Amino acid sequence: MKTVLIKGGTVVTQNAKREVLQGDVLIEDGRIAQVGKVRGSADEVIDAAGDVVMPGLVNAHTHVAMTLMKGIADDMPFGDFLDRVFAADAHREERDLELGTKLGCLEMIRSGTTTFVDMYYSEDVIAKAVEQAGLRGVLCWAVLDQRFTTQKGVPLDNCKRFFHSHRGREKVIPGIGLQGVYVCSEETFMASREFALEKGLLLHFHLSETRKEVYDHKASTGRRPAEWLERIGFLGRQCLAAHSAWLTINEVRALARAGASIASCPVSNMKLATGGVAPIPEMLAEGVNVSLGTDGSTTNNSLDMFGEMKTLSLLQKCSRWDPTVAKAQQVLDFATVNGAKAIGLGHELGSIEAGKRADVIILDGKSPNLRPLLPGNVVSNVVYSANAGNVRTSICGGQVLMRDRQVLTLHEGEVLMAAESTALELLARR
Amino acid sequence: MKTVLIKGGTVVTQNAKREVLQGDVLIEDGRIAQVGKVRGSADEVIDAAGDVVMPGLVNAHTHVAMTLMKGIADDMPFGDFLDRVFAADAHREERDLELGTKLGCLEMIRSGTTTFVDMYYSEDVIAKAVEQAGLRGVLCWAVLDQRFTTQKGVPLDNCKRFFHSHRGREKVIPGIGLQGVYVCSEETFMASREFALEKGLLLHFHLSETRKEVYDHKASTGRRPAEWLERIGFLGRQCLAAHSAWLTINEVRALARAGASIASCPVSNMKLATGGVAPIPEMLAEGVNVSLGTDGSTTNNSLDMFGEMKTLSLLQKCSRWDPTVAKAQQVLDFATVNGAKAIGLGHELGSIEAGKRADVIILDGKSPNLRPLLPGNVVSNVVYSANAGNVRTSICGGQVLMRDRQVLTLHEGEVLMAAESTALELLARR
Repeated sequence: MKTVLIKGGTVVTQNAKREVLQGDVLIEDGRIAQVGKVRGSADEVIDAAGDVVMPGLVNAHTHVAMTLMKGIADDMPFGDFLDRVFAADAHREERDLELGTKLGCLEMIRSGTTTFVDMYYSEDVIAKAVEQAGLRGVLCWAVLDQRFTTQKGVPLDNCKRFFHSHRGREKVIPGIGLQGVYVCSEETFMASREFALEKGLLLHFHLSETRKEVYDHKASTGRRPAEWLERIGFLGRQCLAAHSAWLTINEVRALARAGASIASCPVSNMKLATGGVAPIPEMLAEGVNVSLGTDGSTTNNSLDMFGEMKTLSLLQKCSRWDPTVAKAQQVLDFATVNGAKAIGLGHELGSIEAGKRADVIILDGKSPNLRPLLPGNVVSNVVYSANAGNVRTSICGGQVLMRDRQVLTLHEGEVLMAAESTALELLARR
Repeated sequence: MKTVLIKGGTVVTQNAKREVLQGDVLIEDGRIAQVGKVRGSADEVIDAAGDVVMPGLVNAHTHVAMTLMKGIADDMPFGDFLDRVFAADAHREERDLELGTKLGCLEMIRSGTTTFVDMYYSEDVIAKAVEQAGLRGVLCWAVLDQRFTTQKGVPLDNCKRFFHSHRGREKVIPGIGLQGVYVCSEETFMASREFALEKGLLLHFHLSETRKEVYDHKASTGRRPAEWLERIGFLGRQCLAAHSAWLTINEVRALARAGASIASCPVSNMKLATGGVAPIPEMLAEGVNVSLGTDGSTTNNSLDMFGEMKTLSLLQKCSRWDPTVAKAQQVLDFATVNGAKAIGLGHELGSIEAGKRADVIILDGKSPNLRPLLPGNVVSNVVYSANAGNVRTSICGGQVLMRDRQVLTLHEGEVLMAAESTALELLARR
């Protein structure tokens, strides 16, 4: 694999000291070999003078194939939203899953995400597109009770089959995607956990997104979802709970005790008006690992982690009447080091340090919205001032996915054209 | 002035029927001459096939020169924030005001704003930079009681002088910028009103941004700010009230009775955690004209109206637990036709219709985050999926300010370099 040298940028390292330094980044064999003043050259040299060099962002919760269904169900009551999305979802075919995934991967590459956590069925189809795109995907096959699914066969068996056929790859990492307490029995949760522990897989699941989910579960089991998951013995370090908005402090403590992670999805929660605001300050105080996700494009309607970082901070500050919560540095941590930790790869990803995998993005510093770039405001500018359009170059595992805003791994024009016609066909099938 | 033909885009007209159509836009003498199928050619032809053509956005409240002070005061209590910003503000010089303005204008051009409403002192310095940039600026000289200001002379006299020296220009439109009830007496408000009515000027003012402002005013006058402004006879059609977050329904009705407009600034309100959420549904129900602003870069920290549109919708939906409020079409109206109406130019700006001034932007449709672009999701994609980086071309009054992401009116590289060193000097003076 060729060596890459990124010369002379402002490097937001996200190392333990959270250093921001002027210097170079040398990439060898897909990993970061050196950070600081690098002597010598490399096969590919990228001039980053005046630019911001930072870790690729980790989108800790999405449904990438749904990118094709952007804008089909906005501004409507939650029930109508679900009906419309499920109606389209039930008629999907391999071709539109592939194109939805490619479209989403293009959007992620352009907006600085290098790793994402996906939850959907047909992750085998998704995996093919993700590998072409060159992104790192933790692909969690959707698992739920058989009576609730349109999947052929037993969902957990399908998930296991996907694991066995895709294990050991670098960029596609199979995981388990439990849809939620409303469609997963105790047996489904615990059988999934057993498989996850045996194979070292991520247990990703929706948790307490809506109030209805919480109170329905309490009515049927006597416990709120996170209490119940602790009680049945499900919670553990391998857990990544999406949303986690409607939690009591006792549930936050249960997640902390288990060493679990959460993926907050503020834009999706706000847009669907699900009411709950994830109790981020309490999570941090209790020691829950907080990461950040966009959710799918039918709810957001984008995969833009820069927008997501800013919105998380705004929502926390606004709902707490406290401008000091969800500080810029914390929010950047959610989208980088904490995201890496959430998927069990904290030692491999999330920061620019020698030895880690080279997931690096470069923001065009010659953008007025990022200027002035002063000692002291770099992280603030990244979180509060940057937008997806500032990303000029994206590198994942040493592979340059986009250089100077040209995507190198997928044929963008063809994907956009095909996505358009396929979306029309999908909506017509509905 | 040369003719411009924008060929073959998806045109979000924002006309009375809110039509989205496939077609061309012909610009002659700085105005829109034709929309639809245009025969013939023009001096400059812009191919917009696959792109979104829409009205330039109206940023109805900002302090553009503060762009230089981006990121100097984040994540801190409101009092500390004010201290830090005022400390820097008190030491500004002509050179840094000019560069702050140019930097802000570059950011606005790149993010699709063609008209903005500014409130600051030294609008004469700002005007020069705005005219160079080619943007349309309603420049409201800051007016307050003399005992509260660092301005030399009487602020209202300075404002009048600015009006007389800058009247009758096309793109720089003088206005009056009353800082707020906490620093403006009844006499100052009413003398400003008199001048505004005599000369047909915008009366722009901060209103009920913080709870403290409301309760301090109530303690000293017995009335809440908007009630008081109605009582003293200040409110009228020429009024544009920024923020307007802490309002009772009676105050909303007072604004509606007066035919006043408001400029909501959701990102700024959320980031400063001022607590109030502008009662947009009630404003719409009562007939207040709602527009949208970013506020200055020390609070936002950007001038990005795409981010602002999405955040307004998210905040309204989230705070009301109702996904049907602040719909995409309404929010786009706030940022276009309503913004134009707020500055008294509803007949001239805000939509793409024959006869209106040619303030037009083009979004790069070959962006994955804007695709698929289907019949029915165009406005949704503009509000919920677009980002500032999607803007490829910007035209203001028929003048092409940016073409294919190249700014034509200002030397971007020079401004960015100079802004950086000037910001460092400004912070050192503090």
